[in-house]
Amino acid sequence: MSRVWNFSAGPAALPEAVLQRAQAEMLDWNGSGASVMELSHRGKRFVELAADAERRLRGLLAVPAGYKVLFLQGGATQHFAQIPMNLAPEGGSADYIVTGHWSEKAVREASPYIDARVAASSASANFLDLPPRDTWILNPDAAYVHYTSNETIQGVEFHDIPDVGRVPLVADMSSNILSGPLDVSRFGLIYAGAQKNIGPSGLVVMIVRDELLARPGRPMAKIFRYAEHAANDSMLNTPNTWGWYLAGLTFEWLEQQGGLAAMGERNARKAKTLYDAIDGSGGFYSSPVAVHARSRMNVPFTLHDASLDAAFLAESEAEGLLALKGHKAVGGMRASLYNAVPQAAVDALVQFMRDFATRHG
Amino acid sequence: MSRVWNFSAGPAALPEAVLQRAQAEMLDWNGSGASVMELSHRGKRFVELAADAERRLRGLLAVPAGYKVLFLQGGATQHFAQIPMNLAPEGGSADYIVTGHWSEKAVREASPYIDARVAASSASANFLDLPPRDTWILNPDAAYVHYTSNETIQGVEFHDIPDVGRVPLVADMSSNILSGPLDVSRFGLIYAGAQKNIGPSGLVVMIVRDELLARPGRPMAKIFRYAEHAANDSMLNTPNTWGWYLAGLTFEWLEQQGGLAAMGERNARKAKTLYDAIDGSGGFYSSPVAVHARSRMNVPFTLHDASLDAAFLAESEAEGLLALKGHKAVGGMRASLYNAVPQAAVDALVQFMRDFATRHG
Repeated sequence: MSRVWNFSAGPAALPEAVLQRAQAEMLDWNGSGASVMELSHRGKRFVELAADAERRLRGLLAVPAGYKVLFLQGGATQHFAQIPMNLAPEGGSADYIVTGHWSEKAVREASPYIDARVAASSASANFLDLPPRDTWILNPDAAYVHYTSNETIQGVEFHDIPDVGRVPLVADMSSNILSGPLDVSRFGLIYAGAQKNIGPSGLVVMIVRDELLARPGRPMAKIFRYAEHAANDSMLNTPNTWGWYLAGLTFEWLEQQGGLAAMGERNARKAKTLYDAIDGSGGFYSSPVAVHARSRMNVPFTLHDASLDAAFLAESEAEGLLALKGHKAVGGMRASLYNAVPQAAVDALVQFMRDFATRHG
Repeated sequence: MSRVWNFSAGPAALPEAVLQRAQAEMLDWNGSGASVMELSHRGKRFVELAADAERRLRGLLAVPAGYKVLFLQGGATQHFAQIPMNLAPEGGSADYIVTGHWSEKAVREASPYIDARVAASSASANFLDLPPRDTWILNPDAAYVHYTSNETIQGVEFHDIPDVGRVPLVADMSSNILSGPLDVSRFGLIYAGAQKNIGPSGLVVMIVRDELLARPGRPMAKIFRYAEHAANDSMLNTPNTWGWYLAGLTFEWLEQQGGLAAMGERNARKAKTLYDAIDGSGGFYSSPVAVHARSRMNVPFTLHDASLDAAFLAESEAEGLLALKGHKAVGGMRASLYNAVPQAAVDALVQFMRDFATRHG
């Protein structure tokens, strides 16, 4: 069939231009006579590709001096465990801001290694809002403060970087990295699974301040130590070379789109289009999330009558609108509007939603 | 340029038919209207792909009942650390057979977690031979015995499965898995980085006996526990979906080639072609490895005059023979002859070697 409009929460839509280039280069990348997947990560050609991708990412985010950029494996979930192993001593403690499914999981995976203190939580609001900053009880001696800048499942997003004083701020940005400009200097460590705004799954991008890499952490295998990965330019062992390659193509595509300021504007417009359609539907659709905390990337919404859900999903899929089913933890619908989802896709979705409401109203 | 003959040690040559299919399906996989990389790993289509790949691998290796097959991340190196975490209690001990670079690294990464005992080593033979079985000093109470079935750098390979009695045998088969028939029932755990005989880098395939998954290991994050991955069909978190897809295509290709018996015969013939050319070169080329331990997958060899090395590499590359430089730890040349390297590639290499010897003899 022809290409669909893909609202998957992750793995998610990739820029079509990136896929076309990867397709064209599949059997002969860069004049090598081989696929990029068939080349040694230590060969000159791949080392250049790797450095180029990092350079583009540093440019897009204006990463200041004093930060390393790492290309790792394991998904964000593995780093829920690995971050405390690296940044806190045995018996140490860190503060966690809990705003939904993923930050809860970050606490759970950290707990075998440190005292993962819940310094703030919006559990009592059913994760449909963010915990007000004046309710946060931060420990000034915490090894770091961890938060999830966007909750993919609940659809809540921080629109400002929280001020946590002098304790290093660690952010899981898996689902909103590169969605707009970012002041990296405010962070000690940023990490993101690639499969939303960067590339395919199986790759994690991390941006980490040098002084955090110097922390001794705890005794562990070298392969778990970020400082070792940094010292080896993320080639301590064989990296996910295909993921790194596609990430580089995506960074190049973002440059061509005008960079992160342009993406931020587009993403704001896409989100406004969809939230306006929901809010203007006369109650046919509704968004459960507090308006000021609504995510630009993941938009959960419900139909006024849940018995229409199955028809909504079947009819939308028949019209080439893919993956609108909400996560089972919250039900209803969810449209993910990552960078690679164009305004045209949101327009098509909104048109479908109006038509559906008319037919079933 | 046209496709080269690729002798890379890893990431390595992939079957051209697999690359062509991945290319054709890049923008629209299986009628989904999206790339396989753009689909949720929890969606029906990908779950079917995942199960199909596992079924094909089980068929190829005739995996007996009572084993789980896992698709993981992190490279073999991460599992050097994770295997002791899972299979041994705190303060536990395991036996390691050290036969080269990779088994040494396995010991080093295991050591923060267990007493990683060197039960046998060929270090005194400079890793150019295997330690004779009657020199192994095994501990009957070891949590497991670990060995490296093929050493990619030194080019030594076990041609039989060692008998280690009742202690579970654990094998790093990264560089020779699927190169011929295998009696899986002899093993407690087999693992392999994908980037030699399975697919692209960033994927690890593990075959593990159920009773080993039941071991409590030590306290750790869920994401490191193999039993959790097994209970979640390797979707505890988002897997490397592209790697899983290409692995499935490679397994299908292996079936079309006649399965592992046919591959074993081809690999034996390829290796014989190259070793015969080396041994029959009148000393112009030589293999440093003891004949009975020579690897069928990785063939290191030296020129009688190392000052010819640069010319050999430049001229071979000009003739479309890629990645023949030996690993820096051993020098000289190395040709890797994984499944995706056809007899024609080896024939071309041998012809070049003869011509080169004539020109420079």
